[in-house]
Amino acid sequence: MEDAGLRTWVDQMGNVHGRVEGANANAEALLVGSHMDTVVDAGKFDGALGIVSAISALKVMHVNGKLQNLTRPVEVIAFCDEEGVRFQTTFLGSGALAGILPATTLEIPDKRNVTVKDVLKENSIEAAEEMFLQLKYDPKSVWGYVELHIEQGPVLEQVGFPLGVVKGIAGQTRLKVTVRGSQGHAGTVPMSMRQDPMVAAAEQIVLMESLCKHPEEYLSYDGRCSGSSIKSLSSSLVCTVGEISTWPSASNVIPGQVTYTVDIRAIDDLGREAVIYDLSNRIYQICDKRSVSCVIEHKHDAGAVICDPELSSQLKSAAYSALKRMEGDIQDEVPTLMSGAGHDAMAMSHLTKVGMLFVRCRGGISHSPQEDVLDDDVWAAGLATLSFLENL
Amino acid sequence: MEDAGLRTWVDQMGNVHGRVEGANANAEALLVGSHMDTVVDAGKFDGALGIVSAISALKVMHVNGKLQNLTRPVEVIAFCDEEGVRFQTTFLGSGALAGILPATTLEIPDKRNVTVKDVLKENSIEAAEEMFLQLKYDPKSVWGYVELHIEQGPVLEQVGFPLGVVKGIAGQTRLKVTVRGSQGHAGTVPMSMRQDPMVAAAEQIVLMESLCKHPEEYLSYDGRCSGSSIKSLSSSLVCTVGEISTWPSASNVIPGQVTYTVDIRAIDDLGREAVIYDLSNRIYQICDKRSVSCVIEHKHDAGAVICDPELSSQLKSAAYSALKRMEGDIQDEVPTLMSGAGHDAMAMSHLTKVGMLFVRCRGGISHSPQEDVLDDDVWAAGLATLSFLENL
Repeated sequence: MEDAGLRTWVDQMGNVHGRVEGANANAEALLVGSHMDTVVDAGKFDGALGIVSAISALKVMHVNGKLQNLTRPVEVIAFCDEEGVRFQTTFLGSGALAGILPATTLEIPDKRNVTVKDVLKENSIEAAEEMFLQLKYDPKSVWGYVELHIEQGPVLEQVGFPLGVVKGIAGQTRLKVTVRGSQGHAGTVPMSMRQDPMVAAAEQIVLMESLCKHPEEYLSYDGRCSGSSIKSLSSSLVCTVGEISTWPSASNVIPGQVTYTVDIRAIDDLGREAVIYDLSNRIYQICDKRSVSCVIEHKHDAGAVICDPELSSQLKSAAYSALKRMEGDIQDEVPTLMSGAGHDAMAMSHLTKVGMLFVRCRGGISHSPQEDVLDDDVWAAGLATLSFLENL
Repeated sequence: MEDAGLRTWVDQMGNVHGRVEGANANAEALLVGSHMDTVVDAGKFDGALGIVSAISALKVMHVNGKLQNLTRPVEVIAFCDEEGVRFQTTFLGSGALAGILPATTLEIPDKRNVTVKDVLKENSIEAAEEMFLQLKYDPKSVWGYVELHIEQGPVLEQVGFPLGVVKGIAGQTRLKVTVRGSQGHAGTVPMSMRQDPMVAAAEQIVLMESLCKHPEEYLSYDGRCSGSSIKSLSSSLVCTVGEISTWPSASNVIPGQVTYTVDIRAIDDLGREAVIYDLSNRIYQICDKRSVSCVIEHKHDAGAVICDPELSSQLKSAAYSALKRMEGDIQDEVPTLMSGAGHDAMAMSHLTKVGMLFVRCRGGISHSPQEDVLDDDVWAAGLATLSFLENL
């Protein structure tokens, strides 16, 4: 950051900042950033790519003596703890600046009972509740937030484009479904006398997939879900069962209980709610039919974030000009896509308008050491950031 | 046992024996028994009921001076380790007497690496491989084996009868199915681009249940499975998924792999094979359709055991006369049922003809502290054993 001519500091949450005031130090600032933490065994691009692209673009401007041409202050922020791996809570860095963290955040313990406060202290930061008031940015001082991030999905690779503009970040609901039946000996209970929660759960999971692939065939066009909601759902809705377990979990025992998670995301909040309403009803119907009991718990709910159209349009132009600079003529339009994953932009949307650019992910693999970006696409990311800043 | 006038000893495997020679010490002996071990947290009737009923019946005969009326020697055996909890291998006691244990059995370790041999030594038994030759009973010295056992299933309770005659012990196959797909972020991979092993497994489990409930609708009447096989299958076939796990098992990750167990049992071995053949084909078809890969491993295969018709007929008469003695007139016939669970009789069938009597289980609950038998049914069990011995 200092090489790029930025004034730097570390805030009380551990976020690293680098700022240049540009031609007008009193103007609202553009914040550009992403996170510097990763999940365990992640690839090197998750988060870091957005920080490095911003610093690199500013360094180019610095070397060329153009930092003073910036029409407004630009502040690069490397956010701490976006992933939530250690404290099981996401957006510790961006959440603090956006002012959405409760004061109790400092007392959240990790698995070894070391709290956020303890960790800050180890790093010479004496944290107290009042600091949250100081950390929160004044919305009046901020113009917008822009984040560049690896897509971590297969869409850009499939359409064959290095960059894409994010139209919004999907809202998310996480359910925990518990199905309870009659535990029994795998050999002694005839099929007709079983109340088997495993087969009930399997039927529910098959139904869930079908509903999420073709919501238009399941949802009724009533007050809960308009036609347009259903249409936008069909393109953005994703549903996943990532965890499942049986109890007592023995190959020769009909389980007494099965628990599984459902992760549902969509860009349309009303549509997502309609899906959850319908899915829940159908889960209960399957349980009734099979004489097992179902409990559906909502473990997490987050509304969708719609990216700012003006920022998106500027990012689109920047991506276009970066690709043109690299490849000569560009035939296709820069694609627009949804983000199914959460990002710091989600927290920052509580403070200011946000815009996001996605960089193509090789093999669509995310959160693994194989998560990768082609060298050319790294260049495209840097050039697009530069173009965006030059045209602020 | 000594109270009942039996000569007793403990053999080199830890089985406890009590024998009376009766009127003809040279005749082939009737062996009566069950196991004295249980699973962890089991009820008190599993195994023990068969041993105690036999001893009690013989004690009644002893008190009444009728032991000498027995037409052949009767030997009660309390088998050790039928459940296989400690060494993960069943029928250690009955298997040794039936001569079906390999010599390597002595070297099987428990979780703490203490072997069968070590445990026998702790109990003052110096075990060596040669002992297996000594333990094996001479088939010519044995007339048959009879076992009374708690049903551990709901059938007798449903038909409202305290006792039932076992027509056979189901054969069993245990499969491990591994489905591999493309691991991905729950938010970023569109439904249409997924290769999700979880939904593939769910579809397979739903299909498995349907096939096992209505094999006649799935299996073709070709060389693999005759019409009569399918008919007998429909009444005895049971299929269970008791264990399932995803990898990496996170609510926000589309699993890369799902593994589950299938336990399939039927009284008809050919029918069971036909079911496994058909189920495996359909599992592979579902994997092909979904572009995921499947591996099906056979972890365990055991053929069915058919109980001896003559012994079964004698047990039926004994059960009838016991119930008549208790309740006066009996309207219904003593029911005949299949055993879906394995029992020492399964091992003993390698040595001699076998017969089994089931005692009604309260609530159909098995292998739990709630496993229970009504007091009246305990009486019925003892009286039936007595009647059987009196009419040998």
